[in-house]
Amino acid sequence: MHKSPSLSEIKATAQRLAPHLVHTPTVPFAGCSIEGLDSVSVFMKLELLQHTGSFKPRGALNAMMALPDDVKGVTAFSAGNHAIATAFAASKLGLSAKVVMPETANAYRVECCKAYGAEIVFGQEIADLIAIVEELKVSEQRALIHPFEGPHTVAGTATVGLELSQAVPDLDAVLVPIGGGGLMAGVASAIKQLQPKCTLIGVEPTGADGMSQSIDCGKPVDKVQVSTIADSLGAPMHTPYAFGVVQRYVDELVQVSDEQLRDAMRCLFVDAKLAVEPACAATYAALKGPLKGRFTDGQRIAIIACGSNIDLASYQRIVS
Amino acid sequence: MHKSPSLSEIKATAQRLAPHLVHTPTVPFAGCSIEGLDSVSVFMKLELLQHTGSFKPRGALNAMMALPDDVKGVTAFSAGNHAIATAFAASKLGLSAKVVMPETANAYRVECCKAYGAEIVFGQEIADLIAIVEELKVSEQRALIHPFEGPHTVAGTATVGLELSQAVPDLDAVLVPIGGGGLMAGVASAIKQLQPKCTLIGVEPTGADGMSQSIDCGKPVDKVQVSTIADSLGAPMHTPYAFGVVQRYVDELVQVSDEQLRDAMRCLFVDAKLAVEPACAATYAALKGPLKGRFTDGQRIAIIACGSNIDLASYQRIVS
Repeated sequence: MHKSPSLSEIKATAQRLAPHLVHTPTVPFAGCSIEGLDSVSVFMKLELLQHTGSFKPRGALNAMMALPDDVKGVTAFSAGNHAIATAFAASKLGLSAKVVMPETANAYRVECCKAYGAEIVFGQEIADLIAIVEELKVSEQRALIHPFEGPHTVAGTATVGLELSQAVPDLDAVLVPIGGGGLMAGVASAIKQLQPKCTLIGVEPTGADGMSQSIDCGKPVDKVQVSTIADSLGAPMHTPYAFGVVQRYVDELVQVSDEQLRDAMRCLFVDAKLAVEPACAATYAALKGPLKGRFTDGQRIAIIACGSNIDLASYQRIVS
Repeated sequence: MHKSPSLSEIKATAQRLAPHLVHTPTVPFAGCSIEGLDSVSVFMKLELLQHTGSFKPRGALNAMMALPDDVKGVTAFSAGNHAIATAFAASKLGLSAKVVMPETANAYRVECCKAYGAEIVFGQEIADLIAIVEELKVSEQRALIHPFEGPHTVAGTATVGLELSQAVPDLDAVLVPIGGGGLMAGVASAIKQLQPKCTLIGVEPTGADGMSQSIDCGKPVDKVQVSTIADSLGAPMHTPYAFGVVQRYVDELVQVSDEQLRDAMRCLFVDAKLAVEPACAATYAALKGPLKGRFTDGQRIAIIACGSNIDLASYQRIVS
């Protein structure tokens, strides 16, 4: 059986992270206008109100706190939310951060990293980014802070599940977006220990279904063809630890198309007053799309709004 | 001394309203990017996550609950949030609602009212709306649910202040938007009893500064020239009760221009992931504009995001 963080580890992690992070609110989704869901209680965990605008600092901070004392610098590869989180976490802990981003990275996200004092290095393909990171590990003795892999990252993201479970103690289902699977691995670890009867449903973009592929073939696939507007969910590969936890705990995976993501973004604007990037709308898209009609009277469903960093022009282009 | 709701009245109101309403979250504003505010703690009360998308049902429900048993129907005049709130509250309490809206009312807001089962009557000028309402009071024995006046309305909005005070017990200042002043009267009543040292600052649009005019001349002005993009703050007149409570409790009023409102809407999009109508950005606009540099190290400031009902096209037109 694959190892995953125990409840006491998750609680200890939550305590360790608390001084640096926001305990994000879980709210009844008062405006939820999905047909057939009138009598279902939908709760939304607003993790987009976290520092840096996404759940990512939970894992990044926890991974950095576990580093040996003599490590003075970190590195990471990411096009967005993890890059910003790494920059933030390093600044909180007094570490030097050098973040490797693709040249195509959104300028707004690059600025966010710089604002936290990180140095940015640009690469082209994902293979280049990883090569640069590998080089920085050796030449500058920087520790790699992985975007989704490893027990420290997953113990960090598990605090999202712990908070959610405290806020809504009797959930029938939780919907979690899946990119690399780090968030899902953590949330599932917490929820399945605290509310074993709760169904865990992962949501992938149709054009980035690497976790579904991995589950189908019983091992993490090492290359994923990514084509989706939900760039934050476009993991180029999967990894053993996060995959193993997902395989152990997750009950079901569903996919949402780009059009369903756009529609969910528009609905979140109107129903929840939230302006979010596509990845953040994925769970709502699943509720409206592949899971429509699935939930019935009196059931209690949580969706995780995992984070959002998008500039106004990009947002308008996508929803228009 | 002007009468205002006592603490025990406010607490009783909160209990009465609780089954129907969302206890909205107050969150540390993690993304707040205002220069000079790095060391100030800014908290945001997310009242826009309330049922109907604004604080308005708190007052409307409380006013309806106080009606004699033989009243079976209500009426109200409003271009937006109060109309929706009246429709919602009536549907919750099994009352018939006939809402009088201007012909220029946003189609999206009209649809929201209809979705809660209200009948809509259209008028032209504000004087027409009031005339229609007066006629409905007589011909259909409907009770008028006022958008901001009266002790029941103010006891309802005071629950916003109660929740805020419970969430953040040691505030230095609270910023509240002012239209007719009903929200401010309530919030101030609660906060000044619970945290007497906290400064209460009201925010009006430059083009709808009727409360400032009223304070200046010592009585509620009965006609206000309104010209602002923050239509939800454009009260056409002021009224004795709400004015009296504001006069008693509020420490300061500031104004924000349409351009400052637009800028604050853009910033809330980026910093808080919120897509809000102009009125909802008013307190943030004040923090960035007229109050810039006012707060110092370690101070704790709350801003109220009072509500938002705006369609995507209107939003894009305003922020672009």
